[in-house]
Amino acid sequence: MPKEASGQDMATPLSETKKAHSEPADQGRFRITPDVDDPRLTAPVTGVDHEGKPADIRVPTERPLTIFLNRQEIVTAMTIADYPDYLAVGYLLNQRMLTPEDRITGIDYDEDIDTVVVRTDRETDFEEKMKKRTQTSGCAQGTVFGDLMDHLDEVRLPDDAVVKTSWIYALSRQINQQPSLYLTAGAIHGCVLCEEDRPVAYMEDVGRHNAVDKIAGWMHLEGVTPRAKMFYTTGRLTSEMVIKTVQMGIPVLISRSGFTAWGVELAKETGLTLIGRAKGKRFVCVSGAERLVFDADPATAMDEPEHMRRKGSRGG
Amino acid sequence: MPKEASGQDMATPLSETKKAHSEPADQGRFRITPDVDDPRLTAPVTGVDHEGKPADIRVPTERPLTIFLNRQEIVTAMTIADYPDYLAVGYLLNQRMLTPEDRITGIDYDEDIDTVVVRTDRETDFEEKMKKRTQTSGCAQGTVFGDLMDHLDEVRLPDDAVVKTSWIYALSRQINQQPSLYLTAGAIHGCVLCEEDRPVAYMEDVGRHNAVDKIAGWMHLEGVTPRAKMFYTTGRLTSEMVIKTVQMGIPVLISRSGFTAWGVELAKETGLTLIGRAKGKRFVCVSGAERLVFDADPATAMDEPEHMRRKGSRGG
Repeated sequence: MPKEASGQDMATPLSETKKAHSEPADQGRFRITPDVDDPRLTAPVTGVDHEGKPADIRVPTERPLTIFLNRQEIVTAMTIADYPDYLAVGYLLNQRMLTPEDRITGIDYDEDIDTVVVRTDRETDFEEKMKKRTQTSGCAQGTVFGDLMDHLDEVRLPDDAVVKTSWIYALSRQINQQPSLYLTAGAIHGCVLCEEDRPVAYMEDVGRHNAVDKIAGWMHLEGVTPRAKMFYTTGRLTSEMVIKTVQMGIPVLISRSGFTAWGVELAKETGLTLIGRAKGKRFVCVSGAERLVFDADPATAMDEPEHMRRKGSRGG
Repeated sequence: MPKEASGQDMATPLSETKKAHSEPADQGRFRITPDVDDPRLTAPVTGVDHEGKPADIRVPTERPLTIFLNRQEIVTAMTIADYPDYLAVGYLLNQRMLTPEDRITGIDYDEDIDTVVVRTDRETDFEEKMKKRTQTSGCAQGTVFGDLMDHLDEVRLPDDAVVKTSWIYALSRQINQQPSLYLTAGAIHGCVLCEEDRPVAYMEDVGRHNAVDKIAGWMHLEGVTPRAKMFYTTGRLTSEMVIKTVQMGIPVLISRSGFTAWGVELAKETGLTLIGRAKGKRFVCVSGAERLVFDADPATAMDEPEHMRRKGSRGG
């Protein structure tokens, strides 16, 4: 437990606490994005290239961030640490350690000791839950505590959501053109919360699970509902990604990358619209295709030119 | 604890236990590979494509596998489960729950209840260690228990290892041309243990950490030393990948993908040769470049033709 929080019993209204992150000046059409100009998010590295010449590159940073819920240490995540408050809250929500009804009384980020403490007015204790761990296969969540799966069938995804194919093409184009840490430094995952043909919130992280959790935390703290939203990810559509998306109440999940069998199965069980291998004009929808509206002529959706091609993650 | 193991106190010599996996008939030059023809490793999925037409694709399976060490449940991994014995042993070794000196007296895989039990003649108890969890940022390890980092500086990587640039090109070519679950079903990570210009062991998994652990388990059970070996991965070069490679005693780590800053830092501290962004003739070596021997003319290393291009993982 970090010193700053252990002696602190007074609840501070969240609105009075300082935000634990800075935000980039220009976010384009997005309401929130990584700050690609923040020098703390990437680091210069000097190496040698294939010809033996010096090579100066930038790479994403990767820092430990230990998340506490009240007095309890929950987990240490490896992250670029640009939005520790959203990450912590999103992580706790997605693990069901925090419920949407909980009143968050404070979020304290201490950059020097790499900790973030989320405080609630309700007593919390997750010793038992934390004993049961599942390592997920995604590109990183890593750990799903305890009983996450048990609650999936309680979630009701909205029936009235639609996905126009023109939106899929418009979103891919905008996301590909957005300045990103990926374009600056590579080796990073991205997630985008979208509404119709508009990208709304963009998060990147060295751990894909962190990018997802940061979106979840942002939605919760900013009061953004999952209704009529779509979730776009650069990573694979594994069971973990499906569970998280359903958990967040978002009815549509889209990726440039491929599927795992259990991810597909869970999507079908929960009624999630699951779209993968979305590159250029192509995609495959393996679940919830009844939400699709084919309003675009694929011939008009250009194949991606080489220079702006983002890799679908082989792994994810 | 699975029934099969709980009542079992007699140590069975490993040589007498049945192997917990089958092996493919033709592995080419590799000593071990995934069995791309095994119908349990991929599943058919029917969806609709971008034109609204039915699309039949194959996707990798993803199954829970709970690993026990003696009487203790350690973790549940999501895996394609092709080599549960190698995965369990490699996982325990890489978490330092099993040491190279431990005598493994049996490995029991029960496919019906998705468990694998590794038994040793030494009593083991890792309750304390398991309390401290770090979620890694890689494309999946997820969890590094306890004190892994503390032991890194005890590891001595061999000084006399060299890496010829001709080997890097030869390995990329062979690995790209090898039949793989990736080419069949996508959405999967691959790792290859290599010696000079020869790929030796190839493992794929929906969790990248699993592919690494399967290689570690195979090396241990088959008595393959890390000496003069190189490790090739399709995923990102994060701290987790560097830690695992160093932990396995392998002096060289190569990837098509990029780096994280902490991965680079740890590689420098431990004297690991770290080579990333290796595609076609290009690569960048950011640590341990003194092991490089530039014996190939990059101009003769062809750029990869489009159809055989494997994506470097954006995420990993």
